[in-house]
Amino acid sequence: MPRYTQLIASLPETVPFVGAEVHERRLGRPFRARLGANESAFGPSPRAIAAMAEAAAEAWKYGDSELHDLRAALAARHGVLPANIVGGEGIDGLLGLLVRLLVAPGTPVVTSRGTYPTFNYHVAGFGGVLHTVPYRDDRPDLDALVDAVRSTASPLVYLANPDNPMGCWHSGRMIGDFLDALPGGTLLCLDEAYADTAPPDALPAIAPDDPRVIRMRTFSKAYGLAGLRVGYAIAAPGLVQAFDRIRNHFGIGRIAQAGALAAIGDEAHLRETVARIAAGRERLAAIARENGLVPVPSATNFVTMDCGRDGEFARAVVAALAERGVFVRMPFTPPQDRAIRVSVGTDADLAVLAETLPDALAAAGT
Amino acid sequence: MPRYTQLIASLPETVPFVGAEVHERRLGRPFRARLGANESAFGPSPRAIAAMAEAAAEAWKYGDSELHDLRAALAARHGVLPANIVGGEGIDGLLGLLVRLLVAPGTPVVTSRGTYPTFNYHVAGFGGVLHTVPYRDDRPDLDALVDAVRSTASPLVYLANPDNPMGCWHSGRMIGDFLDALPGGTLLCLDEAYADTAPPDALPAIAPDDPRVIRMRTFSKAYGLAGLRVGYAIAAPGLVQAFDRIRNHFGIGRIAQAGALAAIGDEAHLRETVARIAAGRERLAAIARENGLVPVPSATNFVTMDCGRDGEFARAVVAALAERGVFVRMPFTPPQDRAIRVSVGTDADLAVLAETLPDALAAAGT
Repeated sequence: MPRYTQLIASLPETVPFVGAEVHERRLGRPFRARLGANESAFGPSPRAIAAMAEAAAEAWKYGDSELHDLRAALAARHGVLPANIVGGEGIDGLLGLLVRLLVAPGTPVVTSRGTYPTFNYHVAGFGGVLHTVPYRDDRPDLDALVDAVRSTASPLVYLANPDNPMGCWHSGRMIGDFLDALPGGTLLCLDEAYADTAPPDALPAIAPDDPRVIRMRTFSKAYGLAGLRVGYAIAAPGLVQAFDRIRNHFGIGRIAQAGALAAIGDEAHLRETVARIAAGRERLAAIARENGLVPVPSATNFVTMDCGRDGEFARAVVAALAERGVFVRMPFTPPQDRAIRVSVGTDADLAVLAETLPDALAAAGT
Repeated sequence: MPRYTQLIASLPETVPFVGAEVHERRLGRPFRARLGANESAFGPSPRAIAAMAEAAAEAWKYGDSELHDLRAALAARHGVLPANIVGGEGIDGLLGLLVRLLVAPGTPVVTSRGTYPTFNYHVAGFGGVLHTVPYRDDRPDLDALVDAVRSTASPLVYLANPDNPMGCWHSGRMIGDFLDALPGGTLLCLDEAYADTAPPDALPAIAPDDPRVIRMRTFSKAYGLAGLRVGYAIAAPGLVQAFDRIRNHFGIGRIAQAGALAAIGDEAHLRETVARIAAGRERLAAIARENGLVPVPSATNFVTMDCGRDGEFARAVVAALAERGVFVRMPFTPPQDRAIRVSVGTDADLAVLAETLPDALAAAGT
């Protein structure tokens, strides 16, 4: 038996998310509608597909360890410098590295109870002590988060804006006020995975060199490239350099860099996808209402639907949908676990949902 | 300023390898021959290229978090069970996870002085105390490694077989004896990145459930897929499960899984590539001898060439080759740093080397 560290030996066997294919293998058949992982069924830019196909023949070369061209393009897009950009194997990978930079065994860390669980997975994985603040009105409670940071003297606080799993958002002004209210020396991990689908006023104006915050972005959502695993963060150059001390320097491969770079260059595809996502949200909200559920207003590529009962009922709805070939997920913790979370999909996907949801609700209710 | 952990604040700014593109940007022009990163210029299987191109359109979906099909194919190839296989973002990624499993601040770790540096990077990154054992006759000194493990009570020892950067190898029988000589409770990290180009007798017969060893393999070398970032390890199921507690579960994307899976299916391409690599090694050895250098016998896709002088001279040769458009690397530590390390390339690549090496040696010698 290997001599694991004390910390590793103490970790649970849980994983943050059970993948779609894992569910399919358990069910014994593929899903008809894949609406559980907040992917973009509208797919990546055709330019990105072409760039990836072209890069495939060059896949014998390691990718650029400095992500030079990709960081330059991202910097231009965001009006920052390449020195403000760090890339990683998805936001999930970057969250792991960020936690490792700031969290040793016993370090207090603050987040909202029930928000993105992979952050918590990493905090536990590095021995941090998680302090979770309940949502207020189904949204992260900014005042209570500040209080928790103060009382725990945490060096790190996580906020997803827009939020996952609820889809809601705070205004950029409120995020700015939140940042100003945090005690000095606290780093805000602002997870903006859903920034591309959010209204512009949900995104705070933050100076790129502001040392108090790191903003996480991804190609997995509106860009339709979840299967590439490219995330990035915008932060002060000193923090970007700190990642270089621990990151997997060749971790973003050649095809991934080529695909992401081409995707940035196709703004028309992004705009079109965002418009389709917005229309899909409306359709999802309508489907929810037609079935007596209450859609939570969303700035993301999913709609969380309040089922109006308890977690047991919502879990039964998720299971009943899965049995009918529809993959959705749900918030993990009470009282938000009274809802189900449905990603925007194609018209065909949403037609499958509309067809199966009444039956699934009936099956869950009995 | 973020409140980094004590460990992070103490880490140096160094990176294990400076990438080829980084060198190119410093030089201001692309290399004519890319022979420094032990990539396979013979490229990936055409089937893998086709599979990656096809998967590109599906890149909007996350990859299978359990790598089900890939692990099944690898298990079949190696005559083990899928439960014996863990995948990761290259061997580099897996080394980081393995170190994290076993190394806390102060944990002693044993390796050979001058062998693969990314392992050391991770040991330092998790606060381990590295005990390095000098090579004997330019090879890892197995007896001295055992002694070092005993005297330090290290839970982890690293051995690359075949070795990088020297290209040499021990027989499988010697590796087996080494494993038997290690004290109980020590895990051997057996890095077999170059297994595919090694003679069969360099690979030890180890039961897949043997808890004393983890064997690292990769698609980056003979498979020609360095830019995909797919590595894997063969280990006892308990150790494989331990990785699940900390790994980035969706870290290997859809295209990467598709490419690796198709590559396994094209044994003819692998055989052909291995034959071309063997021929290339002969050609590299001849070029070395024509120039008064001594090629070290190699079981890898590179040939290390003893320049017969000191590290300063070899560094000058590497620099002179770079100025002439040829990218090579060299061992990091004395006395092996008297050599340069040249990857096998295409005939055209090796012709460029043959053309430039005499001039580079002359320039370095002045």
